Amino acid sequence: MSLSIKHLVVIGTGLIGGSVALALRRAGCVERITGVGRNARNLKEAVSLGVIDDYEHDIGKAVATADIVLLAVPVAACKQVFSALAKSLPSDALITDAGSTKQSVMASAQKYLTDVSHFVPAHPIAGTEHSGAAAAFAELFEKRMCILTPNAQTDAAALARVRSLWETVGSQVKIMSAIEHDDVLASVSHLPHLAAFAIVNAVSKDNHAFRFAAGGFRDFTRIASSSPEMWRDIALCNSPALMNKIDHLQAELNILREALKHADGAVLLEKFKSAKLARDGWLNDMKQTNGETL
Amino acid sequence: MSLSIKHLVVIGTGLIGGSVALALRRAGCVERITGVGRNARNLKEAVSLGVIDDYEHDIGKAVATADIVLLAVPVAACKQVFSALAKSLPSDALITDAGSTKQSVMASAQKYLTDVSHFVPAHPIAGTEHSGAAAAFAELFEKRMCILTPNAQTDAAALARVRSLWETVGSQVKIMSAIEHDDVLASVSHLPHLAAFAIVNAVSKDNHAFRFAAGGFRDFTRIASSSPEMWRDIALCNSPALMNKIDHLQAELNILREALKHADGAVLLEKFKSAKLARDGWLNDMKQTNGETL
Repeated sequence: MSLSIKHLVVIGTGLIGGSVALALRRAGCVERITGVGRNARNLKEAVSLGVIDDYEHDIGKAVATADIVLLAVPVAACKQVFSALAKSLPSDALITDAGSTKQSVMASAQKYLTDVSHFVPAHPIAGTEHSGAAAAFAELFEKRMCILTPNAQTDAAALARVRSLWETVGSQVKIMSAIEHDDVLASVSHLPHLAAFAIVNAVSKDNHAFRFAAGGFRDFTRIASSSPEMWRDIALCNSPALMNKIDHLQAELNILREALKHADGAVLLEKFKSAKLARDGWLNDMKQTNGETL
Repeated sequence: MSLSIKHLVVIGTGLIGGSVALALRRAGCVERITGVGRNARNLKEAVSLGVIDDYEHDIGKAVATADIVLLAVPVAACKQVFSALAKSLPSDALITDAGSTKQSVMASAQKYLTDVSHFVPAHPIAGTEHSGAAAAFAELFEKRMCILTPNAQTDAAALARVRSLWETVGSQVKIMSAIEHDDVLASVSHLPHLAAFAIVNAVSKDNHAFRFAAGGFRDFTRIASSSPEMWRDIALCNSPALMNKIDHLQAELNILREALKHADGAVLLEKFKSAKLARDGWLNDMKQTNGETL
């Protein structure tokens, strides 16, 4: 059964929300798309670019006729959005989101929604360094993973329909628990970001050393140019898992430091080899899965 | 006075040594280039590619008629090379090198050379992920920094001539002490490499998490695919400075961990902002200095 949506409401019409809208429109499975946001200029641009059909600033009004609502706002804003839409949401409407952390978003949903069975949390692992509706494009999710984190309360039909939505935009859907999602993402995304910020801070203390950094440093620290506000919010929303990963990293750094202290080349070599092996293997797997576009 | 070399001996005819040879040949300032190495196939290829004129496996024989000797071997091999060339080196011949650490190389020179006044340590900050003479190209050093680390014993004329060599191949020469060099490089190169290895090891422990890593992780961990043997040697040759930088990084990680523990968003935001500011500022400076080619 192919996906058919009468009224999609996209709360947060930026890169992610706009790209979902464009991809669903391209698939011809949505009758009307309403964008919700605070920035009128961005919303007007989204209409003129054909990303959305119309827009609304009031969340309650917007969702009153929705059959699917997509939350594509920063994770820290989810609480406020759930609070604003709870009273007006039709009882049969589905909700999904695109947040980078999942336990915190489910906690907000449970706090404000009378029934969370129609909320199917999602995290599409895709993005670019650009933001806003003008940066949206229909191909953003193609061949990218999207992790859904239903729980015991999630309605099976709701899950199937939301899964179909994310597959229709091109994602490869994986299902896991919210706790597992947050642990995995703490490893592969949140820890690297925090470590990049920490390394740049550690290095930039050294007066003029920075001038001598070369291309390797540029690549290594690229993610330290990410939005500080967004990363503050993600870090706060996933702090237990992230603290655990920081401990793992500190343990690895301690091993290297001890090896340096004792001039233990064997330990250094073993550690460097295992890292290279893991990283090269991962890259190889990714290339086979995603082609050269990773 | 332009550079003129009668007999250049390049010990280690790989990417760096080969590229110096090609760049000097292109500049028309060298009469004969002899390559020294253990790999006969690589040396034959270097001859057939016009990188060197001839080759020799015996270091002592090769340097007997040299006026300039370039050591372009891994830092851990420098000791052995100085030991092998000490007896045969003409008293007026100059030596320079291309090692990633400078105190350790000077220590080897002081151990084996009767006179270090003609040794001018150098570190050209340039490279690619390829190796061997076939990967060499004359433009490798163009607009790249090359750090020279003369000391109180260094002969002024030797320094001027070696400086001219590195400028002729296209480098922007900077002069600092070996101790300062090792501290700077520990910050901007050695620490990031060790941290990348540590992060990959920390993350790859998490069973299947790795599969969900995306493009940011690929860039962040690229340097973890570097040669384990080379990085073991560099780390061991610069362990005091590197341990110090690991301490700095761990201190930054501790601050972030404490902020997470206490849900202190203000500290996280301040740290992330200062890192982004430093990184963006550095990138901007680099683009102005090096163009878009960094």
